[in-house]
Amino acid sequence: MRYSLAIMAIALGIGGAQAQVSPPLQVQEIGSFHVGGRVVALGDMPKREIIPSPGAPPIQMDPNGEFQVEQMYAQYIKLAEPRARYPLLLWHGGGLTGVTWETTPDGRPGWQIYFLRQGHDVYVSDAMERGRSGWARFPEIFASEPVFRSIGEGWDLFRVGPQSGWNPKAAQRRAFADTRFPLAAWDAFARQSVPRWTTTDSQIQAAYNEYVQKVCPCVIIVHSQGGNFAFNAALAAPDKVRAVIAIEPSGTPSAGTDASPLRGVPHLVVWGDHFADSPFWQKIRNNVERWAGAIRDMGGTADIMDLPADGLRGNSHMMMMDTNSDEVAGRIQAWMARRGLMR
Amino acid sequence: MRYSLAIMAIALGIGGAQAQVSPPLQVQEIGSFHVGGRVVALGDMPKREIIPSPGAPPIQMDPNGEFQVEQMYAQYIKLAEPRARYPLLLWHGGGLTGVTWETTPDGRPGWQIYFLRQGHDVYVSDAMERGRSGWARFPEIFASEPVFRSIGEGWDLFRVGPQSGWNPKAAQRRAFADTRFPLAAWDAFARQSVPRWTTTDSQIQAAYNEYVQKVCPCVIIVHSQGGNFAFNAALAAPDKVRAVIAIEPSGTPSAGTDASPLRGVPHLVVWGDHFADSPFWQKIRNNVERWAGAIRDMGGTADIMDLPADGLRGNSHMMMMDTNSDEVAGRIQAWMARRGLMR
Repeated sequence: MRYSLAIMAIALGIGGAQAQVSPPLQVQEIGSFHVGGRVVALGDMPKREIIPSPGAPPIQMDPNGEFQVEQMYAQYIKLAEPRARYPLLLWHGGGLTGVTWETTPDGRPGWQIYFLRQGHDVYVSDAMERGRSGWARFPEIFASEPVFRSIGEGWDLFRVGPQSGWNPKAAQRRAFADTRFPLAAWDAFARQSVPRWTTTDSQIQAAYNEYVQKVCPCVIIVHSQGGNFAFNAALAAPDKVRAVIAIEPSGTPSAGTDASPLRGVPHLVVWGDHFADSPFWQKIRNNVERWAGAIRDMGGTADIMDLPADGLRGNSHMMMMDTNSDEVAGRIQAWMARRGLMR
Repeated sequence: MRYSLAIMAIALGIGGAQAQVSPPLQVQEIGSFHVGGRVVALGDMPKREIIPSPGAPPIQMDPNGEFQVEQMYAQYIKLAEPRARYPLLLWHGGGLTGVTWETTPDGRPGWQIYFLRQGHDVYVSDAMERGRSGWARFPEIFASEPVFRSIGEGWDLFRVGPQSGWNPKAAQRRAFADTRFPLAAWDAFARQSVPRWTTTDSQIQAAYNEYVQKVCPCVIIVHSQGGNFAFNAALAAPDKVRAVIAIEPSGTPSAGTDASPLRGVPHLVVWGDHFADSPFWQKIRNNVERWAGAIRDMGGTADIMDLPADGLRGNSHMMMMDTNSDEVAGRIQAWMARRGLMR
């Protein structure tokens, strides 16, 4: 009756702008899988005794053996009648997981559901080493220890406010006056953080490349640290990747990389606001726009969507969580339609 | 057109037993959130310089600061017109994540989708410290280092075959002759493993308890190591937990715990096959059945479903992945219907 009541609410004009009343999604399939990885044999480590759960007898835990490592997790939701030509893959950024694309930290529908409602089959993955992909022992398998993101690190890094505006106490934080990040949900956002490594790019890339081989042709929307992986995945499989939409990508293929394989793979790069406040991001942006230029120089398409220049002010690096996240998504959806990616 | 073609295939009698042709699910909402956890302040650790992604300038990584730790992740899929009275929460076991309940390692629909199709709103969570819940620095926050599951460890522990039958080479493995585990997918199953700790039970329990407060009234289906957490969550909130269905739970509340709060919370415990081959599991089973008896002694309901005694032979500890997983789920669904948990 939930749907019927919702329809009745629409008919009666009940509910304000907050009421998320939408017709049911016609979902054909929900599932998940792991791709990639390898088996590593470890020896020479001493056995330990552990109690697997309270009340259970102790068991001998032998840390040696063969281990499955470096695989990657992906979950898909497929529609009964998709209107997009290709599945849409959402790739997250550093220190985060696929949760980036789900419900926003302040509880609004995220881009996963937005693009499902626009008619895309949507795949959400966790990069190798994060979330449901699992992670491997260090230093035996991963070369280094991981890094952990503090609650405050993103305040400046994600251009929500100036470094000087960060304070562990929520009431004393100072953000950019026009920021679109839902500030009251900052600590909820911090719960999405997971440890990351800085020495595992080759394994992350390998898993993404296998993922593309498994599920594409596809369109990739990628965020931040993921940008470099998606650009390289498109280079490795330009026949499989039909478009790359990079949300504030933080890296690119190495300078001098031949962009000609991407001639037929349209790219879109999306930038938020407050670059003037961040020399760090200005440098990244220059690198990325150089790469976009290299694609265009080869006769390809690499469009730049500069949100403030297009009239949207105050978007942070986490624009899929910003209060106008659906509006940003709508502009991306329109670009996809213009590029012929919808049926 | 995917659905129309599927309907046509049914009409024409195309497709064998393998064709998973079902009408679309009417999904009202898909989302996720984190619950619980706390903020920990760390100091005194030296700064390091890291390169966040190739081509990006180096940044100073300060390992000190305030960290959000010990939260838990859950994802929900809600139907337009649920036929169950309460949402169904699926809690996984040790060394695994919510992926346990999704597509089986050999690619069949798992229990998440099974119970959705039976009319339940379904929540799938990752225990604190695993998967999308993230994990915290050790030994500063978690007391110990984690343990990693080798590919072979589960062969005997999950009663798929005898310890002596394990071999890293798939062709040389020897399983129980009647096992229902999809043996060719053993290595795919190993990809679902994630590190776990043996010193974090209190934090895991705290997060589960907060989760129950947030989303219940509910019914919980719980597996293995999760059993103890669900039994204790029901004790802590007998007004919120409307039933506990424990799939081979490996632990119970401590001996002597008062079971009287559970008088109104029906429990079902489900056991697979090959207990005669495992003194370890016999001991666990005795503990668990003593707890079930304590619930009955207080006038409550604690049913035991012994699959081999009921005519289902060869089920492993991972029965939600076994080749007859839907048949096992069907018996659980029937129990829920008998207990008045469907509308």
